[in-house]
Order: sequence, then C-alpha cells, then structure tokens
Amino acid sequence: MKLVRYGARGAEKPGLIDAAGALRDLSAHVPDIAGAVLADLGALQAIDPASLPLVAGNPRLGACVGGIGKFICIGLNYADHAAESGMAVPPEPVIFAKYTSAVCGPNDPILIPRGSEKTDWEVELAFVIGKPGKYIAEADAMDHVAGYFICNDVSERAFQTERAGQWSKGKSSDNFGPIGPWLVTADEAGDPGALPMWLTVNGQTMQNGSTATMVYKVPFLVSYLSQFFTLHPGDVISTGTPPGVGMGMKPPRYLKAGDVVELGIEGLGSQRQVCEADR
Amino acid sequence: MKLVRYGARGAEKPGLIDAAGALRDLSAHVPDIAGAVLADLGALQAIDPASLPLVAGNPRLGACVGGIGKFICIGLNYADHAAESGMAVPPEPVIFAKYTSAVCGPNDPILIPRGSEKTDWEVELAFVIGKPGKYIAEADAMDHVAGYFICNDVSERAFQTERAGQWSKGKSSDNFGPIGPWLVTADEAGDPGALPMWLTVNGQTMQNGSTATMVYKVPFLVSYLSQFFTLHPGDVISTGTPPGVGMGMKPPRYLKAGDVVELGIEGLGSQRQVCEADR
Repeated sequence: MKLVRYGARGAEKPGLIDAAGALRDLSAHVPDIAGAVLADLGALQAIDPASLPLVAGNPRLGACVGGIGKFICIGLNYADHAAESGMAVPPEPVIFAKYTSAVCGPNDPILIPRGSEKTDWEVELAFVIGKPGKYIAEADAMDHVAGYFICNDVSERAFQTERAGQWSKGKSSDNFGPIGPWLVTADEAGDPGALPMWLTVNGQTMQNGSTATMVYKVPFLVSYLSQFFTLHPGDVISTGTPPGVGMGMKPPRYLKAGDVVELGIEGLGSQRQVCEADR
Repeated sequence: MKLVRYGARGAEKPGLIDAAGALRDLSAHVPDIAGAVLADLGALQAIDPASLPLVAGNPRLGACVGGIGKFICIGLNYADHAAESGMAVPPEPVIFAKYTSAVCGPNDPILIPRGSEKTDWEVELAFVIGKPGKYIAEADAMDHVAGYFICNDVSERAFQTERAGQWSKGKSSDNFGPIGPWLVTADEAGDPGALPMWLTVNGQTMQNGSTATMVYKVPFLVSYLSQFFTLHPGDVISTGTPPGVGMGMKPPRYLKAGDVVELGIEGLGSQRQVCEADR
C-alpha cells in the first residue's frame, strides 16, 4: 500500500495511490497519515481501494507522514560516505536530530537560507515507526516499522560543522526535510537492505548507491535507538546517505538557486526539488 | 499570568494559577496551552480568573506547554559551567536538540535508563515562542517570547559524550525534560536576565546561580536561532545551566534511584523529582 498526504501545506488530506497509480481520498476513514493510524495499518489494508473517491487534478503532495514526533537521522552510515567526509565509520550509530519544522513535501522547493554557501544533498532511505516500543530486541524490531520512504537530508555544511558544534543547526532549515512521495507499507517494500538509490543535480548523477552498503541496518537501528528512548508511532528515522554528496567533491559543489535536484529509491518513487533563495 | 496543564499524562487540561495560588480550569476557553493559544495570550488575559471553575483536589501537573515543535537547548551558555565541563565558551551559541518525547511534568519521576551510570541534572531557564518569525532582528526578539518556565535538562553524560557523537542521544531519554510548574507570561516574569536559580539533590545545594551570568541572552538567542529556521508558536528554548552539575564535581556525582532533585528559579516556582530505575 502506498500512502500519501496531499493538498495545501498544513492542510494535507490522507490518500493512497492505487494499483493503477491513481490518487484516492482516505479522508472518510482516517484523519491523517500519522500517529495512531500508523499503529493500525491493517484497518486501511482492509479497505477496497476501488471504493475510495478518486482525487481530481494533480494536487501538491505533502510530507507522507504527519505529526512527526522525533526525526532521527543516522550519520556516517555508509562506509564510503564516511570516507568522503573525512570521518571514520563510528563504532556505534551516530544519531542527530532534524527539527520537524524542516519537514516538507517531496517536490517542494529547497530553500537556501540567507547567508548559506554550502547547501548540500543526501538521498536516504527513511522509515516510520508504527508500533511503540522501548528496549526492543533486534529480533522483534521489524514489527515496529510501519513503512518506508525517501528522504532528502538537505544539509548546510557550514552551519553543520563550522558554526559551533552539533549538527542539528545545519540540518533543520525550513524545507530541509522533504519526505515521500509515498509511504510504502513494510509488507510491500520488500527487503530494505537491498534497494538501489540515486540522486541527480541538473540531470547529472551525483549519488548512485544501494542500501546494501549501509553499515547499521534497519533492525539494528530500531533496537539501538530504543535503548535511549521510547519509539512512538510517527517517529521517523532516516538511515544515512551513500557517497556522492557535494561536500565530498574536489572541489566541493553546493546548491544554488535554480538548481534542480532529483532523487529516488527503487520501489519508493522519486522526488524533484528546485532550489530557491530564501527571502 | 501563570498557565498550567493538569491531569493525567497525555490528557492534560489547560488551567491557570490565580492570585491566591488556586488552580482554575481554562478548558472552556482554550483546548490546550499550545500553538495558536500562545500566539494570542491577550485573549486569556482578558478573562477574569474569578469566573473560571476552581479545580478540586491536587491533580498532577503536566508539562506547562503542549504540542512542542522544536525543543532547542543552548549548550555551555554560562562561562563557569563551560569551565567545569572542561570546554571553552563557544564563539557563538551551541544548540542541540532534546527530542520532545522526553518532555514531562515538573514533578514526574526522573527515569534512569537501563545501563545508565551518569544521569545528571541541569537547572535552566526556558522560554516558549508565541509569535512566529524568521530572520528576527534582536530589537524585535522579545515580541516573540510568550513566557518563561523552569527546565531540568536531565542528561546522561556517557550517552551524550562517550557513545559516538552528537549530544541528543544523552539528552532525550524518557522524562529527561521536566518543564514547569507554570508558564509565566512574559509581561509578568520581569527581566529574564537577573533571576536567581538553584538545584538541590537530597537537600544538598548543587547549583546556586543566576541568569545574570548567562553568556548569550534571550533576545540574542531568539534572533540567532531564527537565522537557521522559522520559530513557531510552541517552540521551546532552554538557555543553558550555571555551574554545579554532577559531571563537574571531583569526583563526579550522578543520580541513582531514590535520589530527590529539587530546583527552582525566582518567580517561576519549583520542581521536585524522585529518581527511579527505568524498567
């Protein structure tokens, strides 16, 4: 099942993409793709998609999850990306926060903050928690995953690493968290450990990898994170990026107004963002 | 005006503390002390407290702000605390995230996570945003502050600094964010730059300072943070702690089950937490 949120920002409605690729409205069944709804996807799977109203036109897609509690990012989780960043693969996962006000739709513009000269891209596999838990055993971890989607972990490298410590400062600017287009439910996404992923800027391939080279895998991450805090339905975890970010190029290559970023992961669709200077 | 949230966890009701110290119910006027309500405190100030129902008994107090978006903590913002931590005062504010699932009421237990040996305390002045804004001038910053309250920025030092980078990991365990007891509106809180503050463990004074020695002050912080992202109503900023944390003692002194932590800031009331081993 492919779940979406569509409509104007802040007023998104829940929907699904049917087998023919058409958008259908779920508003009569659930208030949002969020929280308790993610804990009970069986109720949605019991609905016959053909019974749902077709949505006319081509509305904006919003972030595919609403009401996100924690947005947890995993750093340096691909060995080759750690190398291009000049850092070692950490002995246990590095986690950092992206503030949820950064979350936006998959095709919303990337806003380049005032004063930014190092806005960068990162295609990542993200997942969302359905079943709450704490101190979760790795063997039980997959029961807690509701579904998967693409995240562009947009990053301002100077804010992140040159402006007095702690990465959140460079990870949380408005629109630095496009997620979607769809939330693909776990039963349909297949093995999250072997998904090809790619990112282009102005049509030129920058990242071309696979989740197969991820260091700390999804079940381990769920268990690991739950040692530090309860995971709640609607918590999003973005699992890190493969090589090919702008920071790692010689010379580095950063985004500027007018650049077009496209990214995708097999089975999870694709995103397209045009860069704009923030006003 | 002193605003509170009271009742069972997850089902708190809005209320206020009247001039006689009695708790009165605001449920008929607002759904919560959160979001848009914080953007329009004038509507609450127009209500005669005597017209509000008195709340019987002595209910639990919840976190004094609901629906928090960003929980932003400022690190090393007192010169003496930076020194006891063995770190320099940063050239600009260090910010880090406390995940909002850590937020709890002012007198809820401190849960010591499994495997923790270095759970520590930090009395802090916190404030909440009322008016949204971005790229806010320092001269306009105080217009964006709805009110002030106490935060105990509970921290697990090994998780924070010895477990592969980024402090959020040690700042976000369940119940690591008691805030309250009250939100004191900005008009009533007085000068946030000269408030005595204290913290005791089992009756012994550990922290005894004043916001007067804060390095980066509230108006600067509002303006600074808004250069990186939009500040929304309900965003909480905790401004750092004065000297006297357990990590800074020789030898270090950390919390264990049964310890009682009490803390207060002049005009903002006090908190009391009993430490428990998390199950």
